[in-house]
This record gives sequence, C-alpha cells and structure tokens, in this order.
Amino acid sequence: MKRIYLDHAATTAVDREVVQAMLPYFTETYGNASSLHSFGRDAKNALDAGRQTVADALGAQANEIIFTSGGTESDNLALTGVGKGHIITSSIEHPAILNTCKYLTGLGCEVTYVPVDSEGMVDPGDVESAIIGDTTLISVMHANNEIGTIQPISEIGAIAKDHGILFHTDAVQSFGKTEIDVRNMNIDLLSVSSHKIYGPKGVGALYIRKGVKIKPLMHGGGHEMGMRASTENIPGIVGFAKAASLAVERFESDTRHLTGLKDMLIAGVMDSIDDVTLNGNPTERLPNNANLRFAFVEGESLLMHLDMKGIAVSTGSACSSASLDPSHVLLAIGIAPEDIHGSIRFTLGRGNTESEIKYVLEVLPEIVGKLRAMSPLAGR
Amino acid sequence: MKRIYLDHAATTAVDREVVQAMLPYFTETYGNASSLHSFGRDAKNALDAGRQTVADALGAQANEIIFTSGGTESDNLALTGVGKGHIITSSIEHPAILNTCKYLTGLGCEVTYVPVDSEGMVDPGDVESAIIGDTTLISVMHANNEIGTIQPISEIGAIAKDHGILFHTDAVQSFGKTEIDVRNMNIDLLSVSSHKIYGPKGVGALYIRKGVKIKPLMHGGGHEMGMRASTENIPGIVGFAKAASLAVERFESDTRHLTGLKDMLIAGVMDSIDDVTLNGNPTERLPNNANLRFAFVEGESLLMHLDMKGIAVSTGSACSSASLDPSHVLLAIGIAPEDIHGSIRFTLGRGNTESEIKYVLEVLPEIVGKLRAMSPLAGR
Repeated sequence: MKRIYLDHAATTAVDREVVQAMLPYFTETYGNASSLHSFGRDAKNALDAGRQTVADALGAQANEIIFTSGGTESDNLALTGVGKGHIITSSIEHPAILNTCKYLTGLGCEVTYVPVDSEGMVDPGDVESAIIGDTTLISVMHANNEIGTIQPISEIGAIAKDHGILFHTDAVQSFGKTEIDVRNMNIDLLSVSSHKIYGPKGVGALYIRKGVKIKPLMHGGGHEMGMRASTENIPGIVGFAKAASLAVERFESDTRHLTGLKDMLIAGVMDSIDDVTLNGNPTERLPNNANLRFAFVEGESLLMHLDMKGIAVSTGSACSSASLDPSHVLLAIGIAPEDIHGSIRFTLGRGNTESEIKYVLEVLPEIVGKLRAMSPLAGR
Repeated sequence: MKRIYLDHAATTAVDREVVQAMLPYFTETYGNASSLHSFGRDAKNALDAGRQTVADALGAQANEIIFTSGGTESDNLALTGVGKGHIITSSIEHPAILNTCKYLTGLGCEVTYVPVDSEGMVDPGDVESAIIGDTTLISVMHANNEIGTIQPISEIGAIAKDHGILFHTDAVQSFGKTEIDVRNMNIDLLSVSSHKIYGPKGVGALYIRKGVKIKPLMHGGGHEMGMRASTENIPGIVGFAKAASLAVERFESDTRHLTGLKDMLIAGVMDSIDDVTLNGNPTERLPNNANLRFAFVEGESLLMHLDMKGIAVSTGSACSSASLDPSHVLLAIGIAPEDIHGSIRFTLGRGNTESEIKYVLEVLPEIVGKLRAMSPLAGR
C-alpha cells in the first residue's frame, strides 16, 4: 500500500544528510562537552559550531542561542523565565504557551489573551491596547500550527520595543518556512524545534537577545551559559544544526515546491468537492498548510478513512489529538462548534510529490461522499 | 596516538547495537506518537515498548516511567514536582539536586543537608533524625558521581516509608552498574539517564511510583500521562531502552570486567606511586570508579599530561569541571582544601581493556614524578 505522509506540522522524517551528520557523534566523537580532555574538546567544538549555525539561520549571535529539548521546553523557559506581572498572548497559541500561561496565572501572573479575526490574524492594535503598567512580556506565535496563519510579528515586535516590553514568539512552525531575522523583527525571545525541519526529535533552541535576563527552568551544572543545566545532547544539536543549514540552503526551492503542492491540493479539493472552506488566511499562510473544513463530515472519520488508504493527516495539532475537545484555534476564528469537527489539516513536506497529491485528490471525493451519505448532518 | 577513554561517569560512547536500534526511527518510523494515523501508531508502539523495557530494568510498571531529556530534568522534575515544606538531602549530591534545592529554598522550602563520613557514606540515622513535621521529601543519591560511594538507599527508603515521606534517589550513576528494584528499595521517585549506560544523550526517565502525585515541570500538550509536555523523542527513547536492556543482559559480565580493571588500576597505582589515597568507600563502591588522590600534585596538570598521552580522565564531575572551585564532594568527606586538587577520577567502561590499564600504569608514575619534582608542595 502507498503511504503518504501529509502531517509535517506534527513531525518530519529526519533528512538522511542529517542522520549522516549525527552518526559520528554517537560512537566516535562522543565526549561530554564539559570535559577538559580531547574527547570533551571535540564535543565542545561540535557544540560551538552547531550554535553558530542555528544563530546564523535566525540572524542572531551564537551566544544568544540556548539549546533545549524542544519547542515546548523553549516556550516554558521563555515564559516562566520572565514569569512575573502581566503577560499578553493570543487566543490561538500552542498548548505549550497556553498551559504555561495558565500555570503562571496560578503563581500570580495576569494574562490577557488577545483575539484573532476569522482568518486567525492578531491585530497589533489589540496587542498595544492590552498593555498595562506592569506588562512584562508579549508572546505571539509566528505561524499557527493548525491553520498556518502567519502573524504580523514585526509590527508586534516594534510595539513591544516602543513600550520597553519583552517580545517572545513561538517560531516552531515557521522556522525554515518563512524568513526570520530576530534583529529586524525586534524579537527578544524565540522558540524553535528541530523535528519540524527534518532534524531529530528531542532538541530545540531558545534565542535570548543579548542583555535580556530570564530565569532558568532547570537547575544543575552550569551548561548553556548557566541557562540550561544538563549534559548537552551533541548528536541532537549537530543534527538540528545540519537541518537548519539545509533549511536555509533549500529555502527557495522548498517554498516553491510546497506552495505549488499546497495550491494544487486546495484547488483540487475545491474543484471536486462541494461545501469545503479553507481555514486560516489565504495569503499570510505557511507554504505547506492546507487546513480544510468539509461540511457535514466528521473529521475523525475522514482521518481514519484516509489512513486506511495510507494517507496521514491530522484533525488538529498532534499535541492535543488525543483530546476530543474542539480545537481552540478553530473556536477562536469563530467556527461554530458543530462545524469544527469537519476540519482536516494537510501539512506538506519536502519529500511529497505531485503524484501523491493526485492520489489524495482521487480518493478524497469518494470518501467525503460516502461519509456525507451516512451523515445525519448532511440533510439539515 | 592511542586514545583511552576513562571518563565513563561523564558520558559513554553509544553502543553500536543501540545506534542500529535507533536508526529506523529517524527516517522510517518517524511519526509523532500523538498522531492518530499509522505513522503515529507505529511511533506510539515504539514508545510503549521502550517504556516497558525501562520499567522492567527498574522493577517498575510501565505507567510509572516518565521519559525526560535526561538526569538533570528528572531530578528537577522530582524535586520541584514535590516542591514544598522541608526536604532532606545529602551534602554530596549532584549539582542537579543541590542547585534545585537552592532554587526551592528561594521559593520558601527548607532544606537539610545531612553529612557523610570520610568515605562519603550517609548514615541513615542522620536522615531519620533530620525528619521534622513538614518534611515532604528525602532525596539521597544512589551512587556518587565523583567518588562512586553507594549509599544505603534501601535503609533510607524504609525510613521514608515508615514516616510517610516521599523518597527520591538520583540513580544516574548506579543504573546499569548496581542492582535496582524500586519496590524492594521503597523508592518513590528515581532518576536515570541514557547517556551514562551507552545510550544516546538527551534522554532519561523519572520513575514515579503509582499513586505519587507531583507537579509537572513543563506545561503544554498532555504527553507522558500529563507529566511532561513535549513531542516524545522516539529515537532517543528506543535507544535508551535498548541500552537499558543491554545493561540488564550484560550486568554480570560487565560487573566482573569493570571490577577486574578497577582493582587492577587501583592496585597498580598504589604499587608504583607513593602517597596515593583512594577517595570513597573501598567496598560499597561502583565497580567502575577509581577516584585517587595524588599528594603534592595539581589534578588539572595531571589531567592535561594524561590527555597529552591520549588518556581521558576527570578531576571531578564534568558538570562542574569548568569551575575552579574545589569539589564539594571531596570537601564533604573531609579532605583539606589544599589536598583536594590532587584527585583524579578514573571511570571505566565496557570497552576498556587490560592493555589500556597497563598503558595507564606505564605512563602515570613518570607523569606524577615529573609533576612532583616541579611542585613546591612536594617539599613541605
């Protein structure tokens, strides 16, 4: 059976060049980067080179990059690292932000959740209006993990700067797929993850602008300039750095390839199936995201039927896929609860092909037709 | 040049069988374990199998194992997860425990540090005497990372149980090198790390006894039974589980091999060099640890000279090797500050050979002799 992976927002296969880059660091250059002997120095050199590569990909300096275990840890470190006063965020953030905000609320922080429009866009004016005397941090994601909407983070960064407030952005989904320059965008803190860009799982980074002081999340040895205790995961960091450099190198060809496939998928679905709506902003959108709402269909059933045909998609973020609650993102863009469950997220990747999309366009209309025929909702 | 790695307490080379076990999970079975499609289910199966393997190695149940990014995170999760009232720990814990205790003190916790004897042993009676009304947690490491002393944790566990207090142990150094059974030893929380047992860096686990409720350290998606948000590091977990199963399988032959080499090294050094002392307990000791104090020698110089001969050793833990402060462990066992700096930690591994130890025994007396000849201390 064909197996077609269209869930690249959940995770990606590790690029074979990345695996090759990592391999020597498991069995040969395996030292602890804090050790003073030659094995340690070799590991430290790999760590330093990886830090420089990730910094370069973000327009940052090497000493502004702290390696973490992934996007969730980076988000937790950024938010709890500031962790006082009033925080402004959006209503469509990843659970790593929303649940950390909830945790901080329990510790006495106040949090304002700015709304989004029907395409998932934050209005920078709303962010500015939400600022109060003790606002310490604005955290607005760069691109949404479910609907792919790209936020005006440069404008939000400028507002934060004007008011002397720190600005964090969760760039887990946008890194490698949109241009990021932490200086031009006035970003103080930025979270990225390796496994969304064809790097290994279990590694990510937090950019911390030079001069910004936050508290560490984990205590122990003085690793990562005192900001993150734990023996550095050298093979993971080497793999992440290789993936970041490939993302920079292939940026234009990837963008062209992904945009082409995404447009082909959206147009093909719209042409062949009635009552389909694109969730999210049609233009300010990740090049690989097609989140489509199929009226009168249960998304879970659609996912299962596609899965039986070898096609892997998602109904929301993988991080909350076990939950049956309606997506907070789709609720926030104003979709009625009864319509939310018919949404499917297709997220394309570097390895997908036109023939794979053609296959999806072949099988999808029949599946949707069959599910609608069985649906009590279709007749309403 | 020969390169002889005798710093296995800092980190280990990943076993080639472990790398082979991990490889398919980078490029083939790469799904997100939370995804509902076939790629996700395959990843989830690997996660479940890995959890069972690590649980089996500890005498635990699978649902008592939470995967983390390593020993430091496990220690932080255990301590901040309890995070209230009075905590009892020892004066020779790893910085991941001591600095987390310091952090918790800042949040209003009270911490008692029980002393150790001249061989680094905690007296369980001291632990019991330290218990007060609001003691919530006892955390005493299983084996010390610098001097290898193995603590009477079964006795401490029994005391904790008698008093209805949680007992945590940092088993990062002992896992795979001593018998561990969390039930028999009355352990409620136990930290382990993959990269100390020939598994990959960036992964570890916290055992949390069924029924014990602690707070998560990282917030986000509901991964790891709600105890640790973040996309699970499947290749890392698969590698860790493979390393754990190899450690169980090879336990007797490893113990015999390591004990033989360690005894050969200690006896050989004692025979050929004057004024050498073994730090730590001679019998209740990790089978791979020889921490030796060379009077009238600067340990850093000895390390550098051994490094020039291709021999990798440590003067303390890698986690604090960048610091010039004297080892808190050696201070705690009563060594005078002026004598501390002459200590060298040799930690042996599965791959070391008799001929490597012979080579060390060949070059070491000459280096020590040369350094002593230059030392102003030698004449005192």
